[in-house]
Amino acid sequence: MVSQKPVIFVVEPFGGSIRWHNPSLPLIFWDDYAVTRGDGIFESILIRDGQAANLNRHAERFRNSAAALGLPEPILESWLSATDAAIEEFGDGEGKCTWTYSRGRASTGMPTAWVVIQPIAEEVLAQRDEGVRVMLSERGWSFPAELPAKTLNYAATMATLRLARERGFDDVIFTDPEEGHILEGATSTVVTVKGNKLRTPAADNILPGTTQAALFEYAESQGYRCKQKVMDTDYLLGADSVWLVSSIRIATRVRRLEEHKLKAPNNEAEIRSLIDAAMSRG
Amino acid sequence: MVSQKPVIFVVEPFGGSIRWHNPSLPLIFWDDYAVTRGDGIFESILIRDGQAANLNRHAERFRNSAAALGLPEPILESWLSATDAAIEEFGDGEGKCTWTYSRGRASTGMPTAWVVIQPIAEEVLAQRDEGVRVMLSERGWSFPAELPAKTLNYAATMATLRLARERGFDDVIFTDPEEGHILEGATSTVVTVKGNKLRTPAADNILPGTTQAALFEYAESQGYRCKQKVMDTDYLLGADSVWLVSSIRIATRVRRLEEHKLKAPNNEAEIRSLIDAAMSRG
Repeated sequence: MVSQKPVIFVVEPFGGSIRWHNPSLPLIFWDDYAVTRGDGIFESILIRDGQAANLNRHAERFRNSAAALGLPEPILESWLSATDAAIEEFGDGEGKCTWTYSRGRASTGMPTAWVVIQPIAEEVLAQRDEGVRVMLSERGWSFPAELPAKTLNYAATMATLRLARERGFDDVIFTDPEEGHILEGATSTVVTVKGNKLRTPAADNILPGTTQAALFEYAESQGYRCKQKVMDTDYLLGADSVWLVSSIRIATRVRRLEEHKLKAPNNEAEIRSLIDAAMSRG
Repeated sequence: MVSQKPVIFVVEPFGGSIRWHNPSLPLIFWDDYAVTRGDGIFESILIRDGQAANLNRHAERFRNSAAALGLPEPILESWLSATDAAIEEFGDGEGKCTWTYSRGRASTGMPTAWVVIQPIAEEVLAQRDEGVRVMLSERGWSFPAELPAKTLNYAATMATLRLARERGFDDVIFTDPEEGHILEGATSTVVTVKGNKLRTPAADNILPGTTQAALFEYAESQGYRCKQKVMDTDYLLGADSVWLVSSIRIATRVRRLEEHKLKAPNNEAEIRSLIDAAMSRG
């Protein structure tokens, strides 16, 4: 599957045509603010069975992110038609679709906008089945509170992930340095399961998770009780299971948290199918 | 001068050749971590009279930023020769040189590295003479403390600058939200002058300024007394003059701080030449 080629469609930011771009050629100019300032936003969307999963929530967050950055309101029709065209060319199989919208070139003042679909990395597929070992890390910054947008600014997050990998972990959960409260995963939302209760951290400075929102809505309809809760590390250790949910990896179980091994719960398969079903509802 | 064309040289990250790139063609691939994650570093260097100003400090900070991000150590020889080649092609006149070094393409694992020289924006030149109106803004994030590197992650800073402009200001000075201490400008270092005393904010979460360092070294040799100091807004208001110093704009006087008009000091010309001379020492 990884031999499948990425597909790119460039979007006209003010509406109009979409345009295929050869992924083997450079796309972005030297003076694009996405590159020089990280001044842009993105969404990652799962493509499965020829459909974009959870698309309404992604489109909504995308629009909110654009508003937070003062970017011109994205013409969703164009983004959707670029996504459709990319799905058609990408063909069968799961894919990772990324919408990127930047302030554009300093020299033209025109935003830059494109859609990519690429195969999902083997490591991501493996983590769905095998779970992850997670390092806790205090996070001293609070971008979402300052700028409630899914921006391209992940350098510090990436540095923390590299540190985690050097130490034998696969992923990171950030905590509040003052109170020690659980915030979020590096690129995912934390969800705990205890009996029929699903909980996700209540905190100001985290970005609302689209996958977690879809899961909670569906799980409620299946008899689970779902809500936000201020939680600390002990709460994670006391749960039946702890999950990192996100668009592409969908859900990976935390099987180690720092030095603590978290045993697989009896209902692991049930929880997996619950999350999977939530994501298949479009 | 603004009609002068930008000049780009691509640097081989592991040494070897440099390569001219046409600025009218795209340079960066869709899967470059500079674009997808802001995972890269940069330096802005003033080009004046065919020379790169304050180059050693920039090269040193660049190397430190690369180390902080775990990027392969930059081969400074290549960066310097690309800079020389770009200066030669750029020709006379002041220029803004930018070194950018990113983790590179996800699909190749090779870092991406390039040098640009472009004309200095008219607005920047005007602000050298006219000074700036400055908004104070609490800053809730502390990237430099988390990741002591000059990364490409400026989305939140840019958002604050846009807000300042909407409110009739030209620039921003960030303050610590807890103590109210002065931190730094949006893209500059704060320097105050009072008699023969030059002061710059002492704070953990600011990036060391190369221009401020050059200024302090030179000013000491000229009989000024220079040091860091924890300072608040009242300290700024009590100074003879307040400056924002940075590589390209060099120095701009704060002529309004929120609602306070800051009068030009008697020695404005003297201070300007001091900073200018400090930057001309290579």
